[in-house]
Amino acid sequence: MLLNVIKIGGEVIDKTDLLNQFLNDFSKLEGKKILIHGGGKKATEISRLLGIETKLVDGRRITDEKSLEVAVMVYGGLINKKIISKLQSLSCNAIGLTGADGNTILADKRPVKEIDYGWVGDIKKVNTEQIDSLLSNNITPVFAALTHDGQGNMLNTNADTIASAIATAMAGKHNVRLIYCFDKQGVLEDINDENSLIKKINAAQYEELKNKKIISVGMIPKLDTGFSALKKGVKEVRITHCNDISNNSKNGTSLVL
Amino acid sequence: MLLNVIKIGGEVIDKTDLLNQFLNDFSKLEGKKILIHGGGKKATEISRLLGIETKLVDGRRITDEKSLEVAVMVYGGLINKKIISKLQSLSCNAIGLTGADGNTILADKRPVKEIDYGWVGDIKKVNTEQIDSLLSNNITPVFAALTHDGQGNMLNTNADTIASAIATAMAGKHNVRLIYCFDKQGVLEDINDENSLIKKINAAQYEELKNKKIISVGMIPKLDTGFSALKKGVKEVRITHCNDISNNSKNGTSLVL
Repeated sequence: MLLNVIKIGGEVIDKTDLLNQFLNDFSKLEGKKILIHGGGKKATEISRLLGIETKLVDGRRITDEKSLEVAVMVYGGLINKKIISKLQSLSCNAIGLTGADGNTILADKRPVKEIDYGWVGDIKKVNTEQIDSLLSNNITPVFAALTHDGQGNMLNTNADTIASAIATAMAGKHNVRLIYCFDKQGVLEDINDENSLIKKINAAQYEELKNKKIISVGMIPKLDTGFSALKKGVKEVRITHCNDISNNSKNGTSLVL
Repeated sequence: MLLNVIKIGGEVIDKTDLLNQFLNDFSKLEGKKILIHGGGKKATEISRLLGIETKLVDGRRITDEKSLEVAVMVYGGLINKKIISKLQSLSCNAIGLTGADGNTILADKRPVKEIDYGWVGDIKKVNTEQIDSLLSNNITPVFAALTHDGQGNMLNTNADTIASAIATAMAGKHNVRLIYCFDKQGVLEDINDENSLIKKINAAQYEELKNKKIISVGMIPKLDTGFSALKKGVKEVRITHCNDISNNSKNGTSLVL
C-alpha cells in the first residue's frame, strides 16, 4: 500500500501562507501519510531572546543542554502543535510525535570523537509496529525532529535523516514515497536560477556534482539520506517544491538508482 | 475495567526527585492509565526570560497570544517530553498529547463577558473513541493542559478541568479512579499543618468549608471538578500526595457524594 513520507523544511514553516497551502494539500493527499518537520527561524529567535548562543565547533552546530531545551520547546511544542491544530481544522486526524512518544524512534547519543555534538541522536531503531498501529487507526503521525535514548533523554536529530529512516523502515511493508519539500523547485545547478532544475539524478551524478561544489550545502543531507533510502527499498524519492506533493506529480528532482 | 486518570500539579513537576519518584510509581501502576500535567515554574521562568508579563484582570490570569505560545512550548513541548522520555525509560509506553492531537479534546474559546480571558478553552467534547483506541493499543496517554478549537487554534485549559473532563467522559466504559496529586497529604483544614488532613468530604461539607474560607484557593478547582466528576459516574475521586497513587491506597482526601 502507498505510504507518503513527507518532510518539510524550515523555509516552509517560516512562511505562513506557504505552510498553510502545504498543509491544505497534505490533508487532501489520499492514502496513508507521515509528516516530518524541522525547525525554522522560530527556534533561532527564541534562543536569541533567551540569550542562548548557537555553539559551533568547526562549523558544526553543537546541541548543549539549553539548545536541546529550545529544540524540544519549539519543534516538539510550538511548531508541532501549530501543524497539528491546523491539520485537525482540515479534518486530517494528526497526532504530533517525537521519537520518545510511543518509543517510535530510539537513538544513541552521538559518541564523542573529534567533536562533542552534545545532545544529538543517531537513529538506532524506528518502531514500525507502533507507527503501523497508528496508521491503521487512521492517524497521521507528524514527527518533530527529536528522538530519545531510552534512558530518559531527548535528543536532537536532523529532520532529513528522520524522514529517510522512517521511509526506509516502513518500506518493508509499504510502497513508500519519500518527498523532501522546500521553497524551491528541486535541486538546482544554480541556486539562484529556478530554471536550472536537475530533473533526475543518480548516485554517480550526485557524487560528481558534489565534488564540483555544484550541489548547494543545504541539499547534501537530503541527497545523502535520499539515496540511502532508495537503495534500501523506498520506491520513490523526490526533492521538490512544497506546493507539489500530489500522488501523481513527477515534478522536482527525482532520485534514481 | 479499572482506568486510573491521574493529574499532577506544578509542585510535583518542579521538584525533580518528587517527579521521578512519581513517574516510577506511575509506570508500575497496573491497568490502563492516563496522566494529565500542568505547568510549573518553568513556564513562568521562560515567560520572564522572554519578557512576557503575566496579565491579570481582576486577579484572573489572561492568556494573550504570547502567553499561549509559552504554554504550548513549555507544557506541550518541554515538560511533556521530559515526562514521556522518562516514562519510556521505565518501560511505560507513553504518548504525549494535547487536545489537538488525535482531536482528543475539543474546546470553545471562552466567550468574552466581563473579562476577555484570551486563548482559553472551555471543553466541549472529549474524544473517548480516540483515547480508547490508544489505551487498547497499550499506550498511556499523557496530556499537557492544552486543547484546541477545531479551527486551527490551540487553547490554554486548566489541568484539573481536563483531568475531570477525561475521567467523566471515560466513565461510560470504565471504572474510573480520578486522582489529583500534589506535594501535600490532601485537603488540609490548616494549609500549614499536615496533620489537619480532611479524610473524607462530601459536597455539603465542601460548601460549608469553602464559605468559611477554610479551603485554600488552590484546592477549589480540584474539589469543584472532582465533585462534578463524582456526580457524573466517576467511581472514586481523591486528592492526595504524589507518592500515594497505588491502586489499593485510600490515603489523602476522598470525595464522597
